[in-house]
Amino acid sequence: MALIAPSNRVRRTVFSEGVEAAGVKAYSVYNRMLLPSVFHSMEEDCRHLKSAVQVWDVACERQVQVAGPEAKRLLQFLTPRDLSRLGPERCLYAPMTDQFGGLLNDPVILQVEEDCFWVSIADSDLRFWIQAFAACNGFEEVVTEPDVSPLAVQGPKAEALMARVFGDAVTGLKFFGVGRFSFGVHSMLIARSGYSKQGGFEIYVEGSAYAMPLWNALLEAGRDLDVRVGGPNTIERIEAGLLSYGNDMTQDTSPLEAGLGRFVDDAALEVCFGGRALMEERAAGSVRALRPIAIAADALPPCDRPWLLLAGAEPVGQVGSAAYSPDFGEGVAIGMVAASHWDAGTELSVETQDGTYPARVRAEFWI
Amino acid sequence: MALIAPSNRVRRTVFSEGVEAAGVKAYSVYNRMLLPSVFHSMEEDCRHLKSAVQVWDVACERQVQVAGPEAKRLLQFLTPRDLSRLGPERCLYAPMTDQFGGLLNDPVILQVEEDCFWVSIADSDLRFWIQAFAACNGFEEVVTEPDVSPLAVQGPKAEALMARVFGDAVTGLKFFGVGRFSFGVHSMLIARSGYSKQGGFEIYVEGSAYAMPLWNALLEAGRDLDVRVGGPNTIERIEAGLLSYGNDMTQDTSPLEAGLGRFVDDAALEVCFGGRALMEERAAGSVRALRPIAIAADALPPCDRPWLLLAGAEPVGQVGSAAYSPDFGEGVAIGMVAASHWDAGTELSVETQDGTYPARVRAEFWI
Repeated sequence: MALIAPSNRVRRTVFSEGVEAAGVKAYSVYNRMLLPSVFHSMEEDCRHLKSAVQVWDVACERQVQVAGPEAKRLLQFLTPRDLSRLGPERCLYAPMTDQFGGLLNDPVILQVEEDCFWVSIADSDLRFWIQAFAACNGFEEVVTEPDVSPLAVQGPKAEALMARVFGDAVTGLKFFGVGRFSFGVHSMLIARSGYSKQGGFEIYVEGSAYAMPLWNALLEAGRDLDVRVGGPNTIERIEAGLLSYGNDMTQDTSPLEAGLGRFVDDAALEVCFGGRALMEERAAGSVRALRPIAIAADALPPCDRPWLLLAGAEPVGQVGSAAYSPDFGEGVAIGMVAASHWDAGTELSVETQDGTYPARVRAEFWI
Repeated sequence: MALIAPSNRVRRTVFSEGVEAAGVKAYSVYNRMLLPSVFHSMEEDCRHLKSAVQVWDVACERQVQVAGPEAKRLLQFLTPRDLSRLGPERCLYAPMTDQFGGLLNDPVILQVEEDCFWVSIADSDLRFWIQAFAACNGFEEVVTEPDVSPLAVQGPKAEALMARVFGDAVTGLKFFGVGRFSFGVHSMLIARSGYSKQGGFEIYVEGSAYAMPLWNALLEAGRDLDVRVGGPNTIERIEAGLLSYGNDMTQDTSPLEAGLGRFVDDAALEVCFGGRALMEERAAGSVRALRPIAIAADALPPCDRPWLLLAGAEPVGQVGSAAYSPDFGEGVAIGMVAASHWDAGTELSVETQDGTYPARVRAEFWI
């Protein structure tokens, strides 16, 4: 494997110093920013995530700030998710679509003030879309990228660690609940959320002054909890069915195809820019969809390219994410599969760069 | 230095097989795609680029295709460059701006058919901006990312090599001239352009069928020209004053500040979305601008973060790109400098992660 070339264009984060001190082995790049990906090995990082607690530098989940009296109305044009339940105490996962229903990003939206929202983005320049849409439709909302760096605390012991650093009240947050909690004299926005199924929180760190102090405080307070520095783990997030924009779906994918139908609300479709296309797709039925795919293999190469799914010799889809799962003793994968072959139990095969393996459509993800 | 984590989200290219065979040492990521950056060392790659010829995988310069009868009129709304001279035989460098005159990207636009243009982009999702602007302003142009992968042939012997593979006619192309030339039975769009000052061409390879055959043909035909696989070289492009979006300028930078005033045409400002802001900036004068900065040093750390420029103790700007140049025996850099300190000859200092060095504003780039 090759190194990552240092470049100012691939931005460091306010936590990079801590990431380096922890001995990061591999980075990805996400929103033109470093995303620490591997510390020990993907397998060992996964095992640890499931048993203890990790601190993740996910500053690359940049925020697009939309500020102004009509900000919420503006955002409702951009997502098929009904934003009426979005509030200061509750953030929402809100896939955003273009006029054809194609996914532009699948962010979480937070209401940080009455007239100010943060769209916490996956890996694409959603700011361009929001800013252009706003400017061309007479919105005077101000669209910026504020200096905010999410830090995730994930794992079964995340709650215990967070309580030590932020006080017991933080454990009262419900899933996707949001609140402000004190770190010393500084108040921080915290959500019970994150890109794992092990439970945890995301802390939206503003500026850089408190970034490394918070990082160090978490590592110090969690010593007896076996806290480690980690990052989003490919094995665990596939087992959990957590999708990755760019891996599992792109602008060519609709939220319905991506299995995100529960975030496509009838109430929002009349207003949403891509609403008509999604209504038509819903009426006609999708022709393909993401499915959990089990791969019969003792090991897998890195899924660094789309892997063709075959029914006999017929191409019926492709895998966008995959890894060998030590816990389940098979390859875990997410694949886009044609309707003709998407039923649970369907036997397929998958072509990787290292050979072809038997594959099977599953009914559910693993965890 | 850490490794780059393999991921389907960070796309391989149609030339990746050749890049790997050539022993790539480091990648960057550009438009969510692998950009090979180092093969021997940055210094040795630079020396070779200046003396022979290199083949570069720059597939990450993705194309945004804008197709439809009003495509050119649409594009003129998005750039302060007058597109009237753009034609099938001439491509144009056309910085694109938001409504505040901030740079969104600095692409080259090619007219590939009467009603079809390729916007060959730097590292940002310009497609989002173009598609949103078009859709919100009643344009029915179709905006897509076609399967096109630029391959650059750069260096003083580029012309000789290209003539061997595409025939002598290709040497008749003028700078930014465009034409179609045959590779076997296949016709390829070729421009005399590229991200070096050593002379060369960019071949817009459509699909994958002819990608590796072309790659191999170039390496085979250039054996006695000492052809090598290479990539955009940080040292050479700074010496030449070739700017990098994300390093030297961002959405917070105007084309005037970036020294791109010669691509801001009066005729275009009335129409361009950011035109009013640019007219105001031009009338008032810019408050800062990019300048070549010489750094007195025998070696420099990688410029992987902005470096503060100081006049005494006063911050007056920052460096976004820098490298030690063996040919000039000093650090070569591009910095954004306040008007108060931008005159050639101004003595400054620059703070790097490894210490502070004397710096001086230069009148011109090095080559």
